[in-house]
Amino acid sequence: MPIVKFAPFASLVQPVFWHELTTLKIDVLRLSDEALPITGSYSVGRSVTDKETGNEIALGCNLSVGPESFDKSGQPSPGAFLAKGHFKNYNTIEEFRAADKTALFNQEAEKMWEAIIATRDTSSLSNFLLITYADLKKYKYYYWFAFPAFVAKPAWEIDELGWKTASEGLTNDSLSSIHGQLRANPLPFFLVRASGEIAPVESYSTFFANVPPAEQTIGFVDPSAHPTNPGWPLRNLLAYLHALYPATTAQLRVLCWRDAEIPATPTGWKSRVGALHCKPAAAGARPSAVGWEKNPQGKLAPRVADLAPMMDPKRLADQAVDLNLKLMRWRILPALDLEKISSTKCLLLGAGTLGCYVARTLMGWGVRDITLVDSGRVSFSNPVRQPLFEFEDCVDGGKPKAECAAARMKKIFPGINATGHTLSIPMPGHPVPPASVAQAKEDVRKLEELIEAHDAVFLLMDSRESRWLPTVICAAKGKIVLNAALGFDTFLVMRHGVRASSVRPEATQLGCYYCNDIVAPADSLTDRTLDEMCTVTRPGLASIAASTAVELLAAVLQHPDGHHAAAPAPNSDPAQLVGAGVLGLVPHQLRGFLAQFRNLHIVGAAYGRCTGCSEAVLRAYETQGFDMILQALNDDKFLQKLTGLDQLYAEGEKALEDVDWDVEDDGEDF
Amino acid sequence: MPIVKFAPFASLVQPVFWHELTTLKIDVLRLSDEALPITGSYSVGRSVTDKETGNEIALGCNLSVGPESFDKSGQPSPGAFLAKGHFKNYNTIEEFRAADKTALFNQEAEKMWEAIIATRDTSSLSNFLLITYADLKKYKYYYWFAFPAFVAKPAWEIDELGWKTASEGLTNDSLSSIHGQLRANPLPFFLVRASGEIAPVESYSTFFANVPPAEQTIGFVDPSAHPTNPGWPLRNLLAYLHALYPATTAQLRVLCWRDAEIPATPTGWKSRVGALHCKPAAAGARPSAVGWEKNPQGKLAPRVADLAPMMDPKRLADQAVDLNLKLMRWRILPALDLEKISSTKCLLLGAGTLGCYVARTLMGWGVRDITLVDSGRVSFSNPVRQPLFEFEDCVDGGKPKAECAAARMKKIFPGINATGHTLSIPMPGHPVPPASVAQAKEDVRKLEELIEAHDAVFLLMDSRESRWLPTVICAAKGKIVLNAALGFDTFLVMRHGVRASSVRPEATQLGCYYCNDIVAPADSLTDRTLDEMCTVTRPGLASIAASTAVELLAAVLQHPDGHHAAAPAPNSDPAQLVGAGVLGLVPHQLRGFLAQFRNLHIVGAAYGRCTGCSEAVLRAYETQGFDMILQALNDDKFLQKLTGLDQLYAEGEKALEDVDWDVEDDGEDF
Repeated sequence: MPIVKFAPFASLVQPVFWHELTTLKIDVLRLSDEALPITGSYSVGRSVTDKETGNEIALGCNLSVGPESFDKSGQPSPGAFLAKGHFKNYNTIEEFRAADKTALFNQEAEKMWEAIIATRDTSSLSNFLLITYADLKKYKYYYWFAFPAFVAKPAWEIDELGWKTASEGLTNDSLSSIHGQLRANPLPFFLVRASGEIAPVESYSTFFANVPPAEQTIGFVDPSAHPTNPGWPLRNLLAYLHALYPATTAQLRVLCWRDAEIPATPTGWKSRVGALHCKPAAAGARPSAVGWEKNPQGKLAPRVADLAPMMDPKRLADQAVDLNLKLMRWRILPALDLEKISSTKCLLLGAGTLGCYVARTLMGWGVRDITLVDSGRVSFSNPVRQPLFEFEDCVDGGKPKAECAAARMKKIFPGINATGHTLSIPMPGHPVPPASVAQAKEDVRKLEELIEAHDAVFLLMDSRESRWLPTVICAAKGKIVLNAALGFDTFLVMRHGVRASSVRPEATQLGCYYCNDIVAPADSLTDRTLDEMCTVTRPGLASIAASTAVELLAAVLQHPDGHHAAAPAPNSDPAQLVGAGVLGLVPHQLRGFLAQFRNLHIVGAAYGRCTGCSEAVLRAYETQGFDMILQALNDDKFLQKLTGLDQLYAEGEKALEDVDWDVEDDGEDF
Repeated sequence: MPIVKFAPFASLVQPVFWHELTTLKIDVLRLSDEALPITGSYSVGRSVTDKETGNEIALGCNLSVGPESFDKSGQPSPGAFLAKGHFKNYNTIEEFRAADKTALFNQEAEKMWEAIIATRDTSSLSNFLLITYADLKKYKYYYWFAFPAFVAKPAWEIDELGWKTASEGLTNDSLSSIHGQLRANPLPFFLVRASGEIAPVESYSTFFANVPPAEQTIGFVDPSAHPTNPGWPLRNLLAYLHALYPATTAQLRVLCWRDAEIPATPTGWKSRVGALHCKPAAAGARPSAVGWEKNPQGKLAPRVADLAPMMDPKRLADQAVDLNLKLMRWRILPALDLEKISSTKCLLLGAGTLGCYVARTLMGWGVRDITLVDSGRVSFSNPVRQPLFEFEDCVDGGKPKAECAAARMKKIFPGINATGHTLSIPMPGHPVPPASVAQAKEDVRKLEELIEAHDAVFLLMDSRESRWLPTVICAAKGKIVLNAALGFDTFLVMRHGVRASSVRPEATQLGCYYCNDIVAPADSLTDRTLDEMCTVTRPGLASIAASTAVELLAAVLQHPDGHHAAAPAPNSDPAQLVGAGVLGLVPHQLRGFLAQFRNLHIVGAAYGRCTGCSEAVLRAYETQGFDMILQALNDDKFLQKLTGLDQLYAEGEKALEDVDWDVEDDGEDF
């Protein structure tokens, strides 16, 4: 008598499964290679009719996984049946290759066997195993499915009639009834009485209690559409019955359920029936199992899904950038709040050497909203020092720097939201002629609007006085301010303090850029020699200062107190990260000395007569708005009067008349 | 009787004059605005015949300056006559505008008058004055010429016949003779006897001693071709004669010499003669002078030469980049040897985050020869961190990194000589299969060739073992080695020591990257998890480390001892730049800690059993070449045996068996 042959499961992986795995790996699993439950699903086997020959061609006996496979509460879609699996993702290709597949397989088979014996539960009969290695740098996924199936010894045989269409074994009414019941209550394995009434296999003892053997049918949802080979689930169902009911299952009538729909004609049922028999095996012992899936070349080896070619390059870039950042959380800094950094909207005032490097480092941190402001055009000396410009941007008078930088950022990373604005920032000491007042007012309004719309503002201009107006507006609006300024081989990077009224009263307010000054910012641009007009700095200085400023912002954002965080004492033990956040210290001011390759930490308290951040200045700005600003621009005594610096200066002059002066001017822009 | 009218000088500036001024300003003058002598030249006035009307049209009465004007030993070209000038270049447009032009002018006129009275020398009669302001950022040159001319009061008059052609006053033979004499001995001002014999004006008393007044003629080379207005030089010549010989110069016959060539016909002479007379002025007093040149709009105001539109953009870029660097020497570091840096040929092993930033900073220093080596292709995560790549470089599998980076550098600065090589550097711990030996040999040969052809080599790879082979080759060849390696928020930047045999014997040899190790470099790449495969670092770290490495190279190149310089003691007073060069300290190793924003200075001596730079290794490499390398690649015990590390290790194991270990692994790549 012919031995029953089975169609093994074939894995069908929807591409979105890999995307889901990628996310899971990066955000949740990280370095874990623990085995996790997943689910797959299968449906009744389908076949298509070859239009030329009229032959039925069976489609694959598929077990499918998709994005829902990782969802613990996930239900199969209508008409699909759940298979439970275990999935294990290795960290390296070497571990994946070296994995002890026999042990893994036997472990899974053992679990399935135990579930049968211990709980008489059929829900493990289609269990599967999936091992993977995801090369997320190249979007290549190595994977291998195993569908453990217990081997019957001796094998099951089918009577000489073989597999017949279902209508030869059951009435049309019974089959229609089965169809209806499965639709209402999907059972992958079921018992059938002659009437067509079905019940879970688990109720074998009771449901068939008074039913003559000839009217007992064992049914299962058959993912195979092969005319003579029922699908893999039958193999384990037979092992189940044979193990639990050895006395009554030497002969079985089996229904391979293959009808998703009721056929148009009573003889059109695709399901099949057959009479199987088998000598009982040695009771109790777990039969051996087989089931590693072969690859498309027919070998017992893993498969590879290469998703790179089918992915949208822009999406690839998006994910790749995220990946590099999220990897930080895998091992080194699980507490790092990347979103806090990447969602910070940054305004860069100045798109020169500092501005370009700051923008690049912000992009590296995944910051998505970056706005640049500059009033200049790209000149021929820029590209070798300002890493968002190229030679072609300089010809014909040069492109506007801010817009050009933003356009380049999009070329670097299409996912960025970068914009550039050509805007002159009004400056104290540079009086506004009456004809230009309306323009100045509009420039101020635009600057206020831009600052309002951002969270952090970088002051990256090349003059002292251009930093005044944004300093005042940011202080009034409570924005985070990062300030960077370059000398020849020295730099200053600092964060401005937060207005006292918004800080806990006991905390010392940190100073701003102007807090050390006893004169108001004034015109330093007119009457400059060429070496004063150009940025004469050691070429490596700007990138160091710019990256330091961005990393200071990152550290501040990761500190529990944010930009309200107190500054660490400048002379504290360097190794003791006192007052540090997740990323480390949040100093107030850093002065870098390239000739020594050292940084000096400085803490400076806010100054009550500061022309940039004192209450007198902020209140005057808040109450008088542009009128106050215009006075500050036009009248070089205004800010000194407003803050009382003039009085201090007069007193000081008197007191110091007899002092010997040894004034040193280091020519730096800070 | 008609008053004599004069054609004033018109300045004619050859564009090359401005290029010469630019070079002079940047390289020599720098911040100096001292008045300097220059020269100009003029020729006989020329006219052209209008073909339609047959009228003669006089061309300008030009005084021309060109590149030779700054050359102190410069001689005028044949047929041209020298004018002496003083030139003053201001540092700022404001100083240029505010200059006291009256004082400057009077000073020059005073000098001219003193020269006349004191030395009777005619060589100052065409003196001129030029003040300039050169905006070298925009290639705009503001300038103003003054051609001081003494005003005769009362004015000179000409008899009723006016100016006649020369042939009406002198014979053809005389005129031909004058032409010949002037060609042989160019005299801008001369005396003529009736015979045509000429002499310098300085010999007035003797040459005309016995000549009847009617046969005395005063000649001058006339830059004017105007029919009735002789050129400006005559004005000062008349003032000269009138001042020195008042008694005999109330009436003068004047020859305006305008013939560069002997005419085809005896009546074709273009020179003119006229009979002038004037009442003597008050003796001794300097007459007033006029002579600031009007601008093309007819106003007494400076002119502007805008050279930007006519310059080749690539040349503009070239000069702009140089300018920014040379400005360092103006004020801050006159001793800086820029050429030493810019002429250093740099080889960058690794074109990733570090490689791209190093390349950019080298470009900022004006380095012209940069070669990159990498074996990878640009991937989607690169552009936001690696500043020589863009999104478009990643699609379709990615461009080769080294070549792509080199191409981008040319887009940034067309004057750069950048090349990229795709090359895998063989590594210890990564055995070479027999089939790949030929390829490995070729790779080693290529690497040796590249190192040989460069002066400084940067090790910027992302693994420990890939640095070994270049460390050995560079040590053997005595190249400068800069090494940069990144952790998550820490970096190492160091210069390798120079081989002991090439250093002064008493100096301590500084260590290389491997000198602290007691195990040979081995495979660290296989079996890596995703976060170990990707560079997981704070995004600002690479640019800081890269720029620090380049600035360390710059400091080393400016140190009198070059890369033989001893390292400063790590705990020396930071403010004391002991052992510093022009750019400051030349530390051996810098460890940067971004969580603290601090750098630590470390000095490490070379280790006699080092697998990278010890004599045992270098001699084995020098004697056995590729065979030795192949052993090191294939046999992971080879280097430890060669250096004696194995023996040390065995002894150490024994000695330390009872020690409690508390090993800390910080997962950093150094």
